[in-house]
Amino acid sequence: MSSATPTTALQTTIEDVAGFQVAGVHCGLKQNGALDFALFVSDRPCVTAGVFTRNVVKAAPLLVDADHLMRKADRIRAVAINSGCANACTGQQGLDNARATARLVAEKIGCGEDEVLVLSTGVIGPQLDMTAIRRGVDLAVGALGDDWEAAARAIMTTDTRPKLAALPADGYTLAGVVKGAGMLAPNMATMLSVIVTDAALTVPGATDALRYAADRSYNRIVIDGDTSTNDTVLLLANGASGTTLTDTTYQTFRDETLPALATHLAQAVVRDGEGVTKFITITVDGAATDADAHQIANTIANSPLVKTAFYGSDANWGRIAMAAGRAGVSFNPDQLMIALGVGENPAAALGDTGLSLVVNGQPRDYEEARATSMMRAPSIVVRVSVGSGAGQATVWTCDLSHDYVSINADYRT
Amino acid sequence: MSSATPTTALQTTIEDVAGFQVAGVHCGLKQNGALDFALFVSDRPCVTAGVFTRNVVKAAPLLVDADHLMRKADRIRAVAINSGCANACTGQQGLDNARATARLVAEKIGCGEDEVLVLSTGVIGPQLDMTAIRRGVDLAVGALGDDWEAAARAIMTTDTRPKLAALPADGYTLAGVVKGAGMLAPNMATMLSVIVTDAALTVPGATDALRYAADRSYNRIVIDGDTSTNDTVLLLANGASGTTLTDTTYQTFRDETLPALATHLAQAVVRDGEGVTKFITITVDGAATDADAHQIANTIANSPLVKTAFYGSDANWGRIAMAAGRAGVSFNPDQLMIALGVGENPAAALGDTGLSLVVNGQPRDYEEARATSMMRAPSIVVRVSVGSGAGQATVWTCDLSHDYVSINADYRT
Repeated sequence: MSSATPTTALQTTIEDVAGFQVAGVHCGLKQNGALDFALFVSDRPCVTAGVFTRNVVKAAPLLVDADHLMRKADRIRAVAINSGCANACTGQQGLDNARATARLVAEKIGCGEDEVLVLSTGVIGPQLDMTAIRRGVDLAVGALGDDWEAAARAIMTTDTRPKLAALPADGYTLAGVVKGAGMLAPNMATMLSVIVTDAALTVPGATDALRYAADRSYNRIVIDGDTSTNDTVLLLANGASGTTLTDTTYQTFRDETLPALATHLAQAVVRDGEGVTKFITITVDGAATDADAHQIANTIANSPLVKTAFYGSDANWGRIAMAAGRAGVSFNPDQLMIALGVGENPAAALGDTGLSLVVNGQPRDYEEARATSMMRAPSIVVRVSVGSGAGQATVWTCDLSHDYVSINADYRT
Repeated sequence: MSSATPTTALQTTIEDVAGFQVAGVHCGLKQNGALDFALFVSDRPCVTAGVFTRNVVKAAPLLVDADHLMRKADRIRAVAINSGCANACTGQQGLDNARATARLVAEKIGCGEDEVLVLSTGVIGPQLDMTAIRRGVDLAVGALGDDWEAAARAIMTTDTRPKLAALPADGYTLAGVVKGAGMLAPNMATMLSVIVTDAALTVPGATDALRYAADRSYNRIVIDGDTSTNDTVLLLANGASGTTLTDTTYQTFRDETLPALATHLAQAVVRDGEGVTKFITITVDGAATDADAHQIANTIANSPLVKTAFYGSDANWGRIAMAAGRAGVSFNPDQLMIALGVGENPAAALGDTGLSLVVNGQPRDYEEARATSMMRAPSIVVRVSVGSGAGQATVWTCDLSHDYVSINADYRT
């Protein structure tokens, strides 16, 4: 999925994306003085695509953004994001506040209210403090520049570090920020990501590329199965590099460049998870379809029994077999294979570097000490094979630790 | 669902069920000397029904039992259960060992091999130690009597106490044992339950009654969403009381008596869960169908974010709203209502005893101190209303604690 070239060129700082300016400021939504308002502004209209949570309960800004994108997907100028308040379950006043935030930004930078997108993350229920938001807009517009790290920091909640990356490509730059989820979000597992490029895209091209990339990145990370009311990924393309993608370079952008950046950002969310001690790659093959394989991988990744076994460095393949078996996908248990590897490359579980635990549905006579030693590694690959079909899928997940329980039992109180 | 009469008559010991004898012994499968082999024998053939795990990976004894029930559902004489080894992922040898166990019992009590059912619970992968099983059969047959508590104790894994109950009814007795799951099973969330009655039932009558009761009891407890390779509930009716059920008394048995006993046993599994500090009743109404309501209640009960908030006594209704919204069931979020109550009766969340947190999708201005005080109770009711439909469902679950992580991170190693 991700080609070698773009991935190796990946940078974990963002220097410049032509035509974009950003800022991260403290406006007063977070009590501890931390940055809590981010602004991303383009000096010209952007072609914009968005993917939003499938949760039935959607936060107010997402409803406003869907409306703006319906009308101005080729004219978006800015994205404003606050942390410290999710503006979810806030009714008509929440919608009014989201629109007012867009209007405040629009007035300052000189565009239409519906050419600004807004996002929020934080506690559900409270209304936005509009005095703080007004201060945030004023400060952020005044601070616009190239401090991408401040912008990435201003959208954090229980994240422990800002997460950002850039990928120079053929005549243009692609860059993005993401906020996680800790092991899952503070109060919500909210995952927000903004990706920008100075390449020129069409609305259908941006939409198709973002869906393709999201399905191979953000939709492949499994934290705890909870889905936020606020989850959003945006892609803005302003064309300021002067590079218009040809059929060939667009295909590379869609198939390799954007998926590579999105995968890096999505994996960064898992790595910075709440209480996470291990990064786990679960790869399933031999299923009838890719969707079946994805369903099995997701079920294994979501199992608290599997996750606690990883935390305890216990090569408890019985729990993996159990989780595979309850995924709602039919397979022949006598064809089940389970193997371990160390690292992040799914191939690590194959051949001599791998340790085969189960073959044809029955345990191998493996050395438990070697299995435990592999399970103590910070990055582990689990390969599950369920038959001879062509369907395969890989997901990235983490363990379930004491710290996860502490963080989430104590978050709000 | 459960009428007042049978529930109030419920006893947590079992004195006598005509024609049944039981035993619980130590045969050597558990290293610590604890009881690990249980035997339930009827002096005459039993009409028998079973419900088994839907996991694709099924333990060997379940495959053997399905075969025996296909041929002899009206002639079953005994159930043998070992703990300490799941006999799952054990291939042909596992099947041979399960059949050999049935044969050993059959030879001792004088019946056909296919008139004995066998169940196992414990670690997945290892083969049954047949020397220990042979010893278990010998010891158990010699110890047959009325020590139901020993039998209930012999099937325990990480359970902290034996779980058994009896319900005297119209001219017959209904009694049963269950092993849980801790918060979920050791290595598997295995839930095993054996219910016996000295009433006479037909095979269709027993089958229909067991499915009806299981759907309202064992299938309403949510531990952590994992489904064992070994989960089984059996109902054996030997008719030794001389009571044959009429249309009317059968209806009472099916609609009230069996569900009341099964609900008590299923709830006992939640109460004895791994690391459980709270018993939580989640009741959903206003959905289009009962199935929709069940799906929403299950999703809330399975959410690690909701479960950790309960552990932390945090009335974090935002997490409940999020979980309801991601259940895959469509509803109007502006009709969402969430209320709390103390105790186990769903009605506790209504009226003056309840505390309304969310009305019409938006938070009420409730007193946080009162909410936290309610959340500190050992038994809590959460009522979620998603519209004006007639669909409703109630499930029972528990919190997610530090002890849960400790037990499951360290279980096997």
